[in-house]
Amino acid sequence: MSRLVLKFGGTSVADIERIRVVARHVKREVDAGHEVAVVVSAMAGTTNQLVDWCKDASALHDAREYDVVVSAGEQITSGLLAIVLSEMGVPARSWLGWQIPMHTSNVHGAARIEDIDTAGLEAAFAEGRVAVVAGFQGIAPDNRIATLGRGGSDTSAVALAAALNAERCDIYTDVDGVYTTDPRMTPRARKLDKITYEEMLEMASQGAKVLQTRSVGLAMAQQVRTLVRSSFDEPDAPALISASRTNTGLPGTLVCDEEEIVEQELVTGIAYSRDEAKITLVDIADKPGVAAAIFGPLADAGLNVDMIVQNVSEDGSMTDLTFTVSHAELDKARAVIEKASDEIGYQQLIADGDVAKISVIGVGMRSHTGVAQKMFRALADRGINIHVISTSEIKVSVLVDAEYTELAVRALHTAYGLDGEAA
Amino acid sequence: MSRLVLKFGGTSVADIERIRVVARHVKREVDAGHEVAVVVSAMAGTTNQLVDWCKDASALHDAREYDVVVSAGEQITSGLLAIVLSEMGVPARSWLGWQIPMHTSNVHGAARIEDIDTAGLEAAFAEGRVAVVAGFQGIAPDNRIATLGRGGSDTSAVALAAALNAERCDIYTDVDGVYTTDPRMTPRARKLDKITYEEMLEMASQGAKVLQTRSVGLAMAQQVRTLVRSSFDEPDAPALISASRTNTGLPGTLVCDEEEIVEQELVTGIAYSRDEAKITLVDIADKPGVAAAIFGPLADAGLNVDMIVQNVSEDGSMTDLTFTVSHAELDKARAVIEKASDEIGYQQLIADGDVAKISVIGVGMRSHTGVAQKMFRALADRGINIHVISTSEIKVSVLVDAEYTELAVRALHTAYGLDGEAA
Repeated sequence: MSRLVLKFGGTSVADIERIRVVARHVKREVDAGHEVAVVVSAMAGTTNQLVDWCKDASALHDAREYDVVVSAGEQITSGLLAIVLSEMGVPARSWLGWQIPMHTSNVHGAARIEDIDTAGLEAAFAEGRVAVVAGFQGIAPDNRIATLGRGGSDTSAVALAAALNAERCDIYTDVDGVYTTDPRMTPRARKLDKITYEEMLEMASQGAKVLQTRSVGLAMAQQVRTLVRSSFDEPDAPALISASRTNTGLPGTLVCDEEEIVEQELVTGIAYSRDEAKITLVDIADKPGVAAAIFGPLADAGLNVDMIVQNVSEDGSMTDLTFTVSHAELDKARAVIEKASDEIGYQQLIADGDVAKISVIGVGMRSHTGVAQKMFRALADRGINIHVISTSEIKVSVLVDAEYTELAVRALHTAYGLDGEAA
Repeated sequence: MSRLVLKFGGTSVADIERIRVVARHVKREVDAGHEVAVVVSAMAGTTNQLVDWCKDASALHDAREYDVVVSAGEQITSGLLAIVLSEMGVPARSWLGWQIPMHTSNVHGAARIEDIDTAGLEAAFAEGRVAVVAGFQGIAPDNRIATLGRGGSDTSAVALAAALNAERCDIYTDVDGVYTTDPRMTPRARKLDKITYEEMLEMASQGAKVLQTRSVGLAMAQQVRTLVRSSFDEPDAPALISASRTNTGLPGTLVCDEEEIVEQELVTGIAYSRDEAKITLVDIADKPGVAAAIFGPLADAGLNVDMIVQNVSEDGSMTDLTFTVSHAELDKARAVIEKASDEIGYQQLIADGDVAKISVIGVGMRSHTGVAQKMFRALADRGINIHVISTSEIKVSVLVDAEYTELAVRALHTAYGLDGEAA
């Protein structure tokens, strides 16, 4: 008998009718012979209401009390789903973080899962019960409720799947899988049958909002096969369609190890992010310590710098340096730099909030050359100027003017042979 | 340093602004040098919403899951009040039932408090912290959340006050104390300064909705001095006004032991209940076993019988028997009796839902005669016919036609010298 962990987000449990649909998904997997743990989020809107109350109560609220208040949302959903499952004839009980217990670090409001004691859940499985687990919460060493930070229910699910040695963690969401690129950008985007953990991590952190970056990282570290699928699928459809060597036979997209993907594409997907801004410092000294003078104050201010490019100076004395931050942090970053201008020493600061980052992602590029070159060529053919380039082992990212975002995504989607039938 | 337990109900914590007023009440007592535990209900409306969701999820929901869902309401309030107190400079932390722990019986949905471990709370007091306790909840032997039933937060507060050896349990409510009778019945109703546990118990169970009957019984058993006062009082007024031999110096009404009341009135108050119905069985056999034949089936059906009157038969063979049930249960009671008619054997069943019960209450009547006689005389003078009479050591109750309720209450209020200045 294999185990599955299913996770349902806030829109999937928004009201009792939606919770009934969730229960039918669960029942299908139980009927197929699985031991099932279900991780649930708070009903859509609930968490925002609870967070707002905390903010109203005090701008500087104690994170431990915030956790008490906000964790109530998932608690409510877990009880309601257990009730609905029982009514459908599926034995179930709810489990709160402290009951499992799911031990976390002491960082209230943004805790890390440290250890999950699965004895209670396994005893419940042995009795034929579904475990309905309140997501997003655990218990800290101070014996108080700790939440994992926004989106933490995905992480709860993946961590639980790892601890239970589950065959798979199924994340039910409001999209039906991971696409070669955002379908809103091109009707030719294709749903991927499989994607590697590494690629999904890049896709997630590059702006694809399907899975929380943190949960993908955990899935990769723990080798938890994670299926992204839609909670709007017909819940009573057969659990498995028709698996083949290259097809999972599952709806949605399976995030898995590279070895499980028989025919790996060179490039798996194109991601983009419009939440970008760049700052260029003109004529800084090309000498040791200048980078520290720039990025030290930015780090101290809690600003997250993404891409950094420094040109080689012609005469070994003066050069230009460009870096990017999120759009929302542009003003703050500029202020930090201007305050440190004496230590840095630059002639001019040029800020540009009207840029976008386009990324080409694929584990296949590890063993193939020419991926970046194909990207530059495709963009050049459309007259798109590249401001900054950044690469990793499985990714090439470029910064372009924001107005070219859609054109760039479409051009690259075609150039790498990702186009499917227009939807 | 003395300890106080304060309890605030749902309307007192209905939103963040109201919670700030609660925090000011708490701060006043802390500033006066008390160690304070605060018991809070769910925000007004929250419990009803949660209960409705459970009912929508399944008419026959598991009480353990109901407890998980419904207890979230008090959890939320406890965290919010702790945040507001901290912001006011009053160190505080929230305590959930399982954290204290407050051990209960295993009867989920209507659990009894069995034992309260006060070590954690006392350690918090020693650190100068207010304990904000989620009311209405504890932890059952199955290590799951148990709720105490509706109105259970009063019981939480009284039980906590007993366990902590608190000087007093202050119940903040939406009325400013206990009155000689319902002020809606007569403008001459007077607020009582003190009332004994026994009298309060009769007043509560006879229809005065100020305190939960159950919590008064617990206060009496544990000798917890309980102050009923308004959460709409000016929160920054001095904690004590001017105590005297006969005046508590406290706002509201103190429910306390008889010994603490120096000058006990003969009659303390007049209570009434319109939620009454009477059933008369005409011509039943006056023989052993007939009462069991009537009340056995009623008890089996979960029906609560209040007054019972059986006349002496003239010839020792046939008699009439009258009993009362709550108005809502009249039809059910009638059906139960009619189903058992063969075993009971009666000529006629007369049901009357248009009656009210009027009660005269006072510990003073233990040592004085003529209290009942004065009642019958006052009612007779107004032409009010008495259907049924029932007495206890400190109470005389009569059943009258419902239309005479107000007239009877006013007549008795005057007859026993309870009238104050018309409000």
